[in-house]
Amino acid sequence: MKGKFITFEGGEGVGKSTQIKLLSDFLKQKHYDTILTKEPGGTDLGVELRKILVTGNKDKMDAITEALLFFADRHHHLSEKIWPALENNTWVLSDRFADSTFAYQFYGHNARVSEENLRYLYKIAVGDFKPDLTIVLDIAPEIGLKRSFAKAETSDNKELRFENINIDFHNRLRNGFLQIAENEPDRCVVLDANKTIEELHQDIIKVVTERFGL
Amino acid sequence: MKGKFITFEGGEGVGKSTQIKLLSDFLKQKHYDTILTKEPGGTDLGVELRKILVTGNKDKMDAITEALLFFADRHHHLSEKIWPALENNTWVLSDRFADSTFAYQFYGHNARVSEENLRYLYKIAVGDFKPDLTIVLDIAPEIGLKRSFAKAETSDNKELRFENINIDFHNRLRNGFLQIAENEPDRCVVLDANKTIEELHQDIIKVVTERFGL
Repeated sequence: MKGKFITFEGGEGVGKSTQIKLLSDFLKQKHYDTILTKEPGGTDLGVELRKILVTGNKDKMDAITEALLFFADRHHHLSEKIWPALENNTWVLSDRFADSTFAYQFYGHNARVSEENLRYLYKIAVGDFKPDLTIVLDIAPEIGLKRSFAKAETSDNKELRFENINIDFHNRLRNGFLQIAENEPDRCVVLDANKTIEELHQDIIKVVTERFGL
Repeated sequence: MKGKFITFEGGEGVGKSTQIKLLSDFLKQKHYDTILTKEPGGTDLGVELRKILVTGNKDKMDAITEALLFFADRHHHLSEKIWPALENNTWVLSDRFADSTFAYQFYGHNARVSEENLRYLYKIAVGDFKPDLTIVLDIAPEIGLKRSFAKAETSDNKELRFENINIDFHNRLRNGFLQIAENEPDRCVVLDANKTIEELHQDIIKVVTERFGL
């Protein structure tokens, strides 16, 4: 595989979608074929699953059902879109990937799905594959959630199922992402997201440029 | 748990939905609280997943994605509907359950998902729970498929995604169900479904009456 697979991770409102777009523009200027995608919802099937997963009542399903649906979306995303693009020398930037499932279902939901079961689901759905680089955007949940709800007020985005869970959940989630990054320092870089859009973009460019020797 | 959990299994067009309804009527006449359900689609979430799973192009997703979605549907079905009903002294009759996933994804699709992975998914989604009785309705696929397509012609049922797979698949499927029943003779009973509706119903009543001492 010649393309690189870069994932953006973090809690709600950290600025993933803004920053991933800016990085995509940067890579295209450098003449790398690049596609932007996201989880859940990176495929036609994923769009249907995303609707089920991120809208509606926060208690509409439990963490095990959620984990199974997220990994179904992920496997389809990989086989239909990510793996073919990488094989075709295209860089793939994904707004969320498997770390989010571990952060939300294991850390956020207080291990309602065991880490062992999530690792087994990863093995079934993803195999030995992993991102070349994962950028974890970190911010205090109070600030991130405020951004998310403000954005929802002024847009059609009503995907607030996870935002509506209590603040303790979001604190565990943040700590989960930091723990994941600590466990895999070769793959993950944590960046402080409490900066201006341009400042954070420059931090990301620096990481990507150094990592891949652009 | 005081209620009994009875599942009906078999390929396309074996008569599961007709027979499960007749058994339900029989149990209600005997004054057992009974609910009828099915997989996929036994819950609101399941209805959405069923639409994704049983309509559209047969190649729209691979066997791993399918297996993950079926077990997501199954876990939700158990936690929202089946387990609470059994606890409430209600008998639950389900048109398909986990055996179908093994028969379709492992036997039918030539082990595109390994048996080990399916067993792990079962452990995650279902745990140690299993049906009190599984009735496998067996018929030659040529006859079953003919029934299925004939039924689709005269109804609004356009759920033919699996019917549209080739006959070899359906032969492997049939053998899969027979193999499963052979492996678990205490739980499973195979009945010849190439009979009249009333004859088959009487066979089923005999099995259920003897099994549970009604």
